[in-house]
Amino acid sequence: MNSIQKILIANRGEIAVRVIRTAKALGYRTVAVYSEADANALHVQAADQAVCIGAAPVGESYLVAEKILAAAKQTGADAIHPGYGFLSENAGFARDCENAGITFIGPSPEAIELMGSKRLSKIAMIEAGVPCIPGYQESDQDAQRLISEAQRIGFPLMVKASAGGGGRGMRLVMEESELEASIKTAASEAKSAFGSGELILERAVIQPRHIEIQVFADQHGNAVYLGERDCSIQRRHQKVVEEAPSPFVSEALRARMGEAAVNAAKACNYRGAGTVEFLADADGNFYFLEMNTRLQVEHPVTELITGQDLVAWQIKVAAGETLPLTQEQISLTGHAMEVRLYAEDPRNNFMPQTGDVIRWQLPESEGVRIDHGIREGQTVSPHYDPMLAKIIAYGSNREEARRRLICAVEDTLLLGVNNNQRFLANILRHPVFAEGGATTAFIEQHFSDDVSIQAAPPSLQALGLAAILMYTHSGVNSAHNAELLSWRNGASAPWQYRLSHEGETYSVEMNVTASGQQPSYEVRQGENTLSLQIISADAKQCVYIKNGVREKVSYHIDGDRLLLNSEFGNACFENTTYAAKKGSSAGNGRILASMDGAIVDVLVKEGDTVSKGQTLVVLEAMKMEHQLKADVDGVVESLTVKAGDQVKIRQLLVSVTADSAE
Amino acid sequence: MNSIQKILIANRGEIAVRVIRTAKALGYRTVAVYSEADANALHVQAADQAVCIGAAPVGESYLVAEKILAAAKQTGADAIHPGYGFLSENAGFARDCENAGITFIGPSPEAIELMGSKRLSKIAMIEAGVPCIPGYQESDQDAQRLISEAQRIGFPLMVKASAGGGGRGMRLVMEESELEASIKTAASEAKSAFGSGELILERAVIQPRHIEIQVFADQHGNAVYLGERDCSIQRRHQKVVEEAPSPFVSEALRARMGEAAVNAAKACNYRGAGTVEFLADADGNFYFLEMNTRLQVEHPVTELITGQDLVAWQIKVAAGETLPLTQEQISLTGHAMEVRLYAEDPRNNFMPQTGDVIRWQLPESEGVRIDHGIREGQTVSPHYDPMLAKIIAYGSNREEARRRLICAVEDTLLLGVNNNQRFLANILRHPVFAEGGATTAFIEQHFSDDVSIQAAPPSLQALGLAAILMYTHSGVNSAHNAELLSWRNGASAPWQYRLSHEGETYSVEMNVTASGQQPSYEVRQGENTLSLQIISADAKQCVYIKNGVREKVSYHIDGDRLLLNSEFGNACFENTTYAAKKGSSAGNGRILASMDGAIVDVLVKEGDTVSKGQTLVVLEAMKMEHQLKADVDGVVESLTVKAGDQVKIRQLLVSVTADSAE
Repeated sequence: MNSIQKILIANRGEIAVRVIRTAKALGYRTVAVYSEADANALHVQAADQAVCIGAAPVGESYLVAEKILAAAKQTGADAIHPGYGFLSENAGFARDCENAGITFIGPSPEAIELMGSKRLSKIAMIEAGVPCIPGYQESDQDAQRLISEAQRIGFPLMVKASAGGGGRGMRLVMEESELEASIKTAASEAKSAFGSGELILERAVIQPRHIEIQVFADQHGNAVYLGERDCSIQRRHQKVVEEAPSPFVSEALRARMGEAAVNAAKACNYRGAGTVEFLADADGNFYFLEMNTRLQVEHPVTELITGQDLVAWQIKVAAGETLPLTQEQISLTGHAMEVRLYAEDPRNNFMPQTGDVIRWQLPESEGVRIDHGIREGQTVSPHYDPMLAKIIAYGSNREEARRRLICAVEDTLLLGVNNNQRFLANILRHPVFAEGGATTAFIEQHFSDDVSIQAAPPSLQALGLAAILMYTHSGVNSAHNAELLSWRNGASAPWQYRLSHEGETYSVEMNVTASGQQPSYEVRQGENTLSLQIISADAKQCVYIKNGVREKVSYHIDGDRLLLNSEFGNACFENTTYAAKKGSSAGNGRILASMDGAIVDVLVKEGDTVSKGQTLVVLEAMKMEHQLKADVDGVVESLTVKAGDQVKIRQLLVSVTADSAE
Repeated sequence: MNSIQKILIANRGEIAVRVIRTAKALGYRTVAVYSEADANALHVQAADQAVCIGAAPVGESYLVAEKILAAAKQTGADAIHPGYGFLSENAGFARDCENAGITFIGPSPEAIELMGSKRLSKIAMIEAGVPCIPGYQESDQDAQRLISEAQRIGFPLMVKASAGGGGRGMRLVMEESELEASIKTAASEAKSAFGSGELILERAVIQPRHIEIQVFADQHGNAVYLGERDCSIQRRHQKVVEEAPSPFVSEALRARMGEAAVNAAKACNYRGAGTVEFLADADGNFYFLEMNTRLQVEHPVTELITGQDLVAWQIKVAAGETLPLTQEQISLTGHAMEVRLYAEDPRNNFMPQTGDVIRWQLPESEGVRIDHGIREGQTVSPHYDPMLAKIIAYGSNREEARRRLICAVEDTLLLGVNNNQRFLANILRHPVFAEGGATTAFIEQHFSDDVSIQAAPPSLQALGLAAILMYTHSGVNSAHNAELLSWRNGASAPWQYRLSHEGETYSVEMNVTASGQQPSYEVRQGENTLSLQIISADAKQCVYIKNGVREKVSYHIDGDRLLLNSEFGNACFENTTYAAKKGSSAGNGRILASMDGAIVDVLVKEGDTVSKGQTLVVLEAMKMEHQLKADVDGVVESLTVKAGDQVKIRQLLVSVTADSAE
């Protein structure tokens, strides 16, 4: 038995906070590591000690094994929990820990290595009798061999990078004509992303369920499974909703899949927490997909239905204890569901968002658990994964869990950072999801025209509330204060309000009727009118009556800027009525950085003639590339950046002089 | 299965708040309805949405089915929980809900109708083999037939309105000579109160226990009982204390009563929560009294000893689920007791009280639950039932529950509205109650001379504390500020304090001895003196030493007005020492409205000669009639109201000029 005393958590965000919680509960001292950008982060506050391990980019901090080992040495930490992502599936890091005499809370380097190769792990799984998708996983990577194997397997067909993950280096090939090109691009993408162009081929499973089995093994040869998770709701191979148990899995199928997963773990002498992912088809066939050799993001749903703390299990196993329960002692009760709250804008192609967390308020409700790593006052930077929190609900049955989760998602208040709250709530409310009938094709088939992912101007309701609340608080600290007050005292003529929202300006007309203590407002935009009565507005929450129904909305006002938790999730309005005219990014030729990030490419030079819509600069931020385009036809007048530059949000990158007066 | 998503609560006060709590916990969205008088009420705040359904009188808001259904439609609520009272036992409303496609969270209209008739339900119960009191329940209501049936049954005898409840239309007939008159008055009272003069006759059970069984049935034919509640402590047929289990009921009796109650439920195809009330005599015989087809006020005691949430059961049953537990799975643990906190003055014939809730602070203590619907700053109006809260305690045995409940009742702080706190605490402390020997005759037999229901002047302790605390805070915002301070700085002579309490003026003399930071006070009233040392007085709580014992008292001071949580519950003193003399209602011929309400009768006219104690005007408020009497002998000089007028508290109604100088 190892005698662990102090655990360093080699991660950040919600998973670091979550691991620290259990470590503390078990009586371990905890050490956080953090980058310079995370000095004020929640996980740093939560730990007993913390060590800064470098600059914001992950390549200079969270991914640098030596710095983390040095931090462990410095603080006397004798164990390291890697969380997920970062170094968690890095066999070299696990080996470094071993060599440094530090317990790596995870499987052996050998198991990590084997499972890191789709090709080798598949061969091992076939040997262990785990059902696998028919395909080709030999070492011969000659293009002709691959093509003839593909013909043997048949179409549709998946081409996958052996070292890949998250959909990169992966191609769905519908017919033979696409095959050669797909193999070529997949191999080159894999080569550049993972350093290896090795591929495997598999028959495609159409509209499958994504079902994964949580397994656990100790160092004494015991291995168990803790039920499955259904992660079929995905967007571009990223999980969006996870639940346990799967509405699709019968008790008999669970036992078959569980035993297969335990066999997979035993085949690689596994230890600790692991997840065996399967694809399941409509007929109840299932096929090994891959094994994740770490704690999964979605582990809480398993915790809720088993009543077990999986991080506690991980630590106990790492300390050399036997598994806390035998297979017979593990039982599943109720239903749990999780969604991932992201700093992203679903109405703008899910572009990652940065910003200051101005309000962060969590609902406290029966059966609701929220794992998160953010604090009010913190900045969501472009350096890390945009996942902010996991909202999880438990219920005695699936419907209760779903209802509770809808309320929890809708009642979570995040102002200051655009996020996918409404997208998540709408998925949960969708009848196909409600009935448990969703496959991995759900979002594409049923959700592509949902209002939560459509760009649309703000509703009159949002505009009206913004104008009314700006008016209500105009006495406090607004720039147009004096003018407003003089108007307020004199005229009964309607107000004109100009509100800026995401670069567009909207005009609304507002009439106030003061009747006693609760003024009534009529807001007009073109032909549309809206009548609201304000009951109270305390700069945090507004209670109003619309069509006879009393409603609540949260908001934050700061001078001429108003953040509203409107039907779009989170909207920021700026009052441009009285404020000095601000530079608008719409059609004025001033190309600004859309977020903090790095310039990866500059496609034009000064003096170039460009046309509206032409890409001028490519910006990388939050793991994604963003193309910044000309918003007018004209000539590049100035260019202030070059490839490799770090830029701040709203920084001027390119100025284009328009061809003629617009 | 119904798929309920949003529940409208067609009620107000504590029960609305309590239903909202469970609905939210189960993940349902909630809608409150409210009258204009309730715009600031707690239940409106607690719900996700709220709809105003009309003016304060219940006949214009909470009792108007169409308005409630319209509110449901407007907000998309697909289920209605009626609470208790109001429309909860209105078969027509249940039917309207059904027709509108809205789930009524309660039994079928047919079951409500049957149980709403004492006569028809008794016939059904006899058929189902449920023990009933021997009597007469035929449709023939001819007076001669009733008289001969009464003679057959024997005396004492109960005459009951078939449609009645709460003691209205009910007469206890001790001997035959009273019979004819009792039948006549009961029938006419029933006719006017319930629209039907139909009567039943029953042998009177003398000094019975009131024992009721909680039953639950689902839509699939299952029915169970969840033990009994003992509600024997009643005042005028209104429950005051409820407990579970009953100290009177053995396990064998519980099983017999439980089975009888389940038979009763099955006999009317019951679904949801119901309560079968029985009278039990000293010999262990029990008789069906009536079945209440709704959640009872006292349901929390059952929740505490069963560990179940009955509102959750109601919602699940309404959604079509089967009962959460079978009879075998239901077990009773420990003991629970509940009292009802009313805005009423036990020392003034329990007259309902109105007022502003100035302080409302609840004790948080092991095993204590307080269900309430009020907020600080709210006005208790005369329009609704004066019940403010239910204070409930759980213990591993009856004595522990009783002890905890006494502390919880005494530690509940309500300033600004007279209430029955002390009455409740004294009942709980009474030896007959403590021993579990109380029957429905308890209050009449053992409690009619209790100090909590006797009008009495304030004690020297209360007067002394009032004077001392007024003195202590006199620097802050009192009218007699300047004069006091000049005195304070100069003299050591005793103060004279005149304090007004409920219209009477009391004089006390006060000496202050400043010794360091903790001044000592001696207060004298006639021959009696009291010495107190004040440790601290922060305008919320005063800590003082009396006879060497350190004590605490809560208070609120507002200018010359001091609210004291004294031994009388809640006392309001006014300092009349320096303030301009205020009109006193005692003996000055100025008859003021004792509360907000409506004038139902004016018994004199201007110029009439009246004598002290003669009723001049009848005021209706909080469901009760109040007779306002002349406080001097004299002549009616002016009369400012007529029958039907709405009046405000302290409004001048009648001026009587006294016969001679008093």
